[in-house]
Amino acid sequence: MTRFVDVKNMVRWAATTGVENIIDGILGYLEEDFKRWASFDKTARVASHTDFGVIELMPTSDGETYGFKYVNGHPSNPARGFQTVTAFGVLADVHNGYPTFLAEMTVLTALRTAATSAMFAKHLARKDSKTLALVGTGTQSEFQSLAMRKAMGITTLRIWDTDPAAMEKFVRNMAPQGFDITVATSARDAVAGADIITTCTADKANAAILSADMIAPGVHINAIGGDCPGKTELDAAILDLGEVFVEFPEQTRIEGEIQQKPQDYPVTEFWQVLTGQAKGRTSDEQITIFDSVGFAIEDFSALRYVRDAVEGTEFFVELDLVADPEDPKDLYGLLGAMAPVGS
Amino acid sequence: MTRFVDVKNMVRWAATTGVENIIDGILGYLEEDFKRWASFDKTARVASHTDFGVIELMPTSDGETYGFKYVNGHPSNPARGFQTVTAFGVLADVHNGYPTFLAEMTVLTALRTAATSAMFAKHLARKDSKTLALVGTGTQSEFQSLAMRKAMGITTLRIWDTDPAAMEKFVRNMAPQGFDITVATSARDAVAGADIITTCTADKANAAILSADMIAPGVHINAIGGDCPGKTELDAAILDLGEVFVEFPEQTRIEGEIQQKPQDYPVTEFWQVLTGQAKGRTSDEQITIFDSVGFAIEDFSALRYVRDAVEGTEFFVELDLVADPEDPKDLYGLLGAMAPVGS
Repeated sequence: MTRFVDVKNMVRWAATTGVENIIDGILGYLEEDFKRWASFDKTARVASHTDFGVIELMPTSDGETYGFKYVNGHPSNPARGFQTVTAFGVLADVHNGYPTFLAEMTVLTALRTAATSAMFAKHLARKDSKTLALVGTGTQSEFQSLAMRKAMGITTLRIWDTDPAAMEKFVRNMAPQGFDITVATSARDAVAGADIITTCTADKANAAILSADMIAPGVHINAIGGDCPGKTELDAAILDLGEVFVEFPEQTRIEGEIQQKPQDYPVTEFWQVLTGQAKGRTSDEQITIFDSVGFAIEDFSALRYVRDAVEGTEFFVELDLVADPEDPKDLYGLLGAMAPVGS
Repeated sequence: MTRFVDVKNMVRWAATTGVENIIDGILGYLEEDFKRWASFDKTARVASHTDFGVIELMPTSDGETYGFKYVNGHPSNPARGFQTVTAFGVLADVHNGYPTFLAEMTVLTALRTAATSAMFAKHLARKDSKTLALVGTGTQSEFQSLAMRKAMGITTLRIWDTDPAAMEKFVRNMAPQGFDITVATSARDAVAGADIITTCTADKANAAILSADMIAPGVHINAIGGDCPGKTELDAAILDLGEVFVEFPEQTRIEGEIQQKPQDYPVTEFWQVLTGQAKGRTSDEQITIFDSVGFAIEDFSALRYVRDAVEGTEFFVELDLVADPEDPKDLYGLLGAMAPVGS
């Protein structure tokens, strides 16, 4: 049988465990997996693009466990009452190929994306960072805020979104959590004085929601929203202000902010920062940029974490996903055995 | 909610509907989809290989519906009590990216593979074909036999497998179905006098279970088992005896029997035979070869068929796979709403 965490169980588990605790747990698994980055089977995700959006499959394997995520990105969905991003994921046993674990990943992707941003910020932002600017207060924004508080102790937020209702929603959700929130009047206003800037907008277009003159020395930027060809958030000139850190360069060059740059644009692979093979931040004045696109290994880490965390709880059910005939060569016999008497 | 056909429901539905009726139904959907082949988003499957086997994702889209299959291939599995091939598949709505249908595909893959073979044979084998030789009597063999009877009226079988127990199992399953079955003494003996030869062995190796001198004029060959790099069934010289028909050349050149041949080895795309753009069989003496590897569109057809066929029946359940917050930008609010009172 395949263990299955559906939406209701994922939400119940998250509410019971606490979002910050889960992000912290995923962050631990992420660091573990990024440190053994070289041992993973890595491939750029397989995308099916249409005018309305994209559907992607993101597989990876560490040689023992295989995992993949199904995820869509449809920027016009919220206007029609649907989620921009929905997802589910699977883990399988490499030794026999059987799927062992299935989970909703709409909620889990939000958690793992926030945990990934927090991991990059923890290792790249100035240790004395006090203020987080959030440009875009959609689905990701609350998770980003809680992640940065857990990883960096940040409680001061400056937010901006072109949709006032999205900002109201953010304040409604996060003010009770003890954050000091300033609703800014523009993206420029939001990032003024911030130590960490997280951009998480979802337009399927080459936007430039931030320009180079808005970025102060010493800032760390998490550029979350630009994640497919033709979808970017930052003025390309921002990338030249500092050092760009990426997950998997082969994918980021196609999907990230650096798609605006030549194919040999210099970037640092973050896993090498973790293992000490590459430098992270080198001074308090340096600008560091995480050109985030989301990579399969992050979903793998998140799925592993949930699988382990729900073990022994009531937050999963068993699915009858894999046929299991008594004689493995007799799949047909399974049908005969189930045939109604007399048929 | 996402509709889900689990193993039990798939088996019950198949037993109730009848394997031959289902194969016939899938065959109709296959012909429909092969005729509009050019309109599909096609990509070679994404494979993760290890020493023990392979795990693959096979996506495709017709611009309205997206589909993919997860499938493994582990030749050493039966010896350990597992299926060589297990699979599940998903359909999604391209317009919003939401998964709408999930189904077990271990049983369904067997049905669609047989239906695909039957479609190729129906259009390529001699119309007066009377005898089917089956080399390999594993999981696929019963389904192949029923498919050829449904599509071609064939009731005379000659079988061979290196595993006597697999042949006994085949006879036990198929003799009650009214077939005239000869258990051969070798692969050479099995194919002697046959009009159609189906090879479905599962070694992950370059085997040559048939050699060119065993193949008589006028024969149609379905080469099912060779379906990944380094896994072939036929002596390469057999390919030169006649015309080779394929599903998706880009994939077949990597995975099929023609991996033994140069990259420009001439093949005919079967969909063009269906649309009249290419020739099928041109004489009763011609040898025709279906170099089958299995392509994503076939799974798409099979999933569409099952989805439509179980509509209004009791053979599916609803899964809570996609988070659906009231405000699509307020995924976090979903967690707050579910938090235990007092927490």
